Amino acid sequence: MALIVQKYGGTSVANPERIRNVARRVARYKAMGHQIVVVVSAMSGETNRLIALAKEIMPEPDPRELDVMISTGEQVTIGLTALALMELGIKAKSYTGAQVKILTNDAFTKARILDIDDHNIKQDLNDGYVVVVAGFQGADEFGNITTLGRGGSDTTGVALAAALKAEECQIYTDVDGVYTTDPRVVPEARRLDKITFEEMLELASQGSKVLQIRSVEFAGKYKVKLRVLSSFEDEGDGTLITFEDDKDSDMEEPIISGIAFNRDEAKITVLGVPDTPGIAYQILGPIAEANIDVDMIIQNTGADGATDFTFTVHKNEMNKALSILRDKVQSFIKAREIIGDDKIAKVAVVGVGMRSHVGIASQMFRMLAEEGINIQMISTSEIKIAVVVEEKYMELAVRVLHKAFELEGD
Amino acid sequence: MALIVQKYGGTSVANPERIRNVARRVARYKAMGHQIVVVVSAMSGETNRLIALAKEIMPEPDPRELDVMISTGEQVTIGLTALALMELGIKAKSYTGAQVKILTNDAFTKARILDIDDHNIKQDLNDGYVVVVAGFQGADEFGNITTLGRGGSDTTGVALAAALKAEECQIYTDVDGVYTTDPRVVPEARRLDKITFEEMLELASQGSKVLQIRSVEFAGKYKVKLRVLSSFEDEGDGTLITFEDDKDSDMEEPIISGIAFNRDEAKITVLGVPDTPGIAYQILGPIAEANIDVDMIIQNTGADGATDFTFTVHKNEMNKALSILRDKVQSFIKAREIIGDDKIAKVAVVGVGMRSHVGIASQMFRMLAEEGINIQMISTSEIKIAVVVEEKYMELAVRVLHKAFELEGD
Repeated sequence: MALIVQKYGGTSVANPERIRNVARRVARYKAMGHQIVVVVSAMSGETNRLIALAKEIMPEPDPRELDVMISTGEQVTIGLTALALMELGIKAKSYTGAQVKILTNDAFTKARILDIDDHNIKQDLNDGYVVVVAGFQGADEFGNITTLGRGGSDTTGVALAAALKAEECQIYTDVDGVYTTDPRVVPEARRLDKITFEEMLELASQGSKVLQIRSVEFAGKYKVKLRVLSSFEDEGDGTLITFEDDKDSDMEEPIISGIAFNRDEAKITVLGVPDTPGIAYQILGPIAEANIDVDMIIQNTGADGATDFTFTVHKNEMNKALSILRDKVQSFIKAREIIGDDKIAKVAVVGVGMRSHVGIASQMFRMLAEEGINIQMISTSEIKIAVVVEEKYMELAVRVLHKAFELEGD
Repeated sequence: MALIVQKYGGTSVANPERIRNVARRVARYKAMGHQIVVVVSAMSGETNRLIALAKEIMPEPDPRELDVMISTGEQVTIGLTALALMELGIKAKSYTGAQVKILTNDAFTKARILDIDDHNIKQDLNDGYVVVVAGFQGADEFGNITTLGRGGSDTTGVALAAALKAEECQIYTDVDGVYTTDPRVVPEARRLDKITFEEMLELASQGSKVLQIRSVEFAGKYKVKLRVLSSFEDEGDGTLITFEDDKDSDMEEPIISGIAFNRDEAKITVLGVPDTPGIAYQILGPIAEANIDVDMIIQNTGADGATDFTFTVHKNEMNKALSILRDKVQSFIKAREIIGDDKIAKVAVVGVGMRSHVGIASQMFRMLAEEGINIQMISTSEIKIAVVVEEKYMELAVRVLHKAFELEGD
């Protein structure tokens, strides 16, 4: 008998029929003797409906009142889910975030969890109840309702699993696990049985959309085993996201776990800037002040006291960043030219195995060169090598690398 | 400067435009220097939508979980109302019932208010906020969400007014006050400026639908001045429901305040029963056990040791009541015959003035007799005389009495 937290997203509870499906799955786990905590999102579309309603009244809604409104989406789902369980003859009881209580700070619409009171939930589990908790929400120290931001229901699931010391936190979604890469680009992509947290973080931040990056960080920090499963299939064990130590010391363990890609970024290059201390801050300071997120940053050692400085931002913010640099920065730092390019894509190979295997980078660069794909930027971490290439070569690059690192299924 | 509680029903907050109207009215009162607590219902139709959703999952929904769901209706409205006030530049803050906290017993879907913590609301009012409270809901001692039953938002408004010692509780609705009778039956019906609680209670229980009877009782008990106003008109002072002592000792004060009527009842007569102790219980005991509400009850002194026993029930329950009496009671008490009649109506004249004026009853009976209307049953209280007549004469009876007691407007 284990304590399991199961989190179901908006598409998994989109209508009464799907909520009945959720109840049937929970019933099967309960019949195996497990204690179950179910975390649910709002029915898909509901949060957006409520935000639109708020904006009809106030175009930029006050965040405290917006949270009061949008938290009702999950509140309706917990009631429905508890009813669906009861209809199957299972004892069930719902909790809003405030009722649990999931204590957060007071950063309305993007609050962070500070503490979870597990007293009532544990009592209910011991009394044989399935406990149904509203995801995405909590309350601050004064009882004000807060929400955790988009994807916050994953975070609620992980935080509850940590507080209750659950065996694992199962995230049910509309895919059946984490893949070596997007199957829409590479049909041979293979579902991974296991992946480490670090790899998952790199995949998530490199553009894989399966899990909210914040919930993965949270799970890593509190050592919660995460499992990604499909809520539309009853077969399969999904993908377990685990710690490096737990991985089977399988001789055949792959060096590379997956390939991520992202075509949402644009590249900005500042040409001919003086190679002097403080230049990076003079360029990126005004960008940060304008709340523009920067991803990759590259600066080469310059020749003749001058250098080129390149960084990437979201495509939607390229023009804003260019204006700032041309208006406020260019003449001040005496840059020769400032160029923007939004026809780029980022491709990254990710795997803990590359720590102990030299030559992954050179193998990657050789494969791309053989296909005539020019590499514009390179960025690396211990378990990731990311390159920027021309956008039109992105899919080719992903397919070539997927094959070269032997990630295909049987 | 006064503290005023304003309660707006579902039709008054049915859409963003109407919510903006509510905010504009609140803003006007605020500009006069008043402190305002606004109590709102769910947008019209929302509670029924949520109940239907629950029933799709569980035909007879668990009441605790149903309350979790349906309480979200008012929660959305408080957010929207607070936003609408802010959009007008007014400081506003919303509270759910649980946040206030409005403490109730744990009778889910029909809870009763036990206590109200006015601490936070008072502080907010003193800080210049308009406080927006969700009607219809509260929480029990364990923090479970409860609802107060249909019309519960009126009760929330009155209870808050009592707790905060408000100057008055204004109930905004789709009529502009309490009338001498239904203007659809008597076009000359006149809006009353004032009416006593006792009269209002008699009018409400006699079929006037303006206010929930429970909130009127509550207001009477806690000496809260109630005022019924239209939320669709900016003119007019509505009808103040007040205490007899407060009424101006106006020489011209009418003896009769209004005429109520009701065609929802049916009459059941048990003929030829022995005039012995316990007979009323033997007849009505099985009716009460079947959860059938009984309104009027008449028993005459019998001649020759036998009597007739008559009572009224809701039309929908007449056949059920007849079956019970014929199957279980008739032979036991040796009744000669049991007759049902659903072609009846009840007409009542109500007024505190009749306490000190003899002859109202005889005047009423004479008027009806002059029109050839036969009186089937009579029931009286200190401030009410009700008669049952054939249904087809109901409107005639109302019009004749309205004229006879000089209730017409100018």
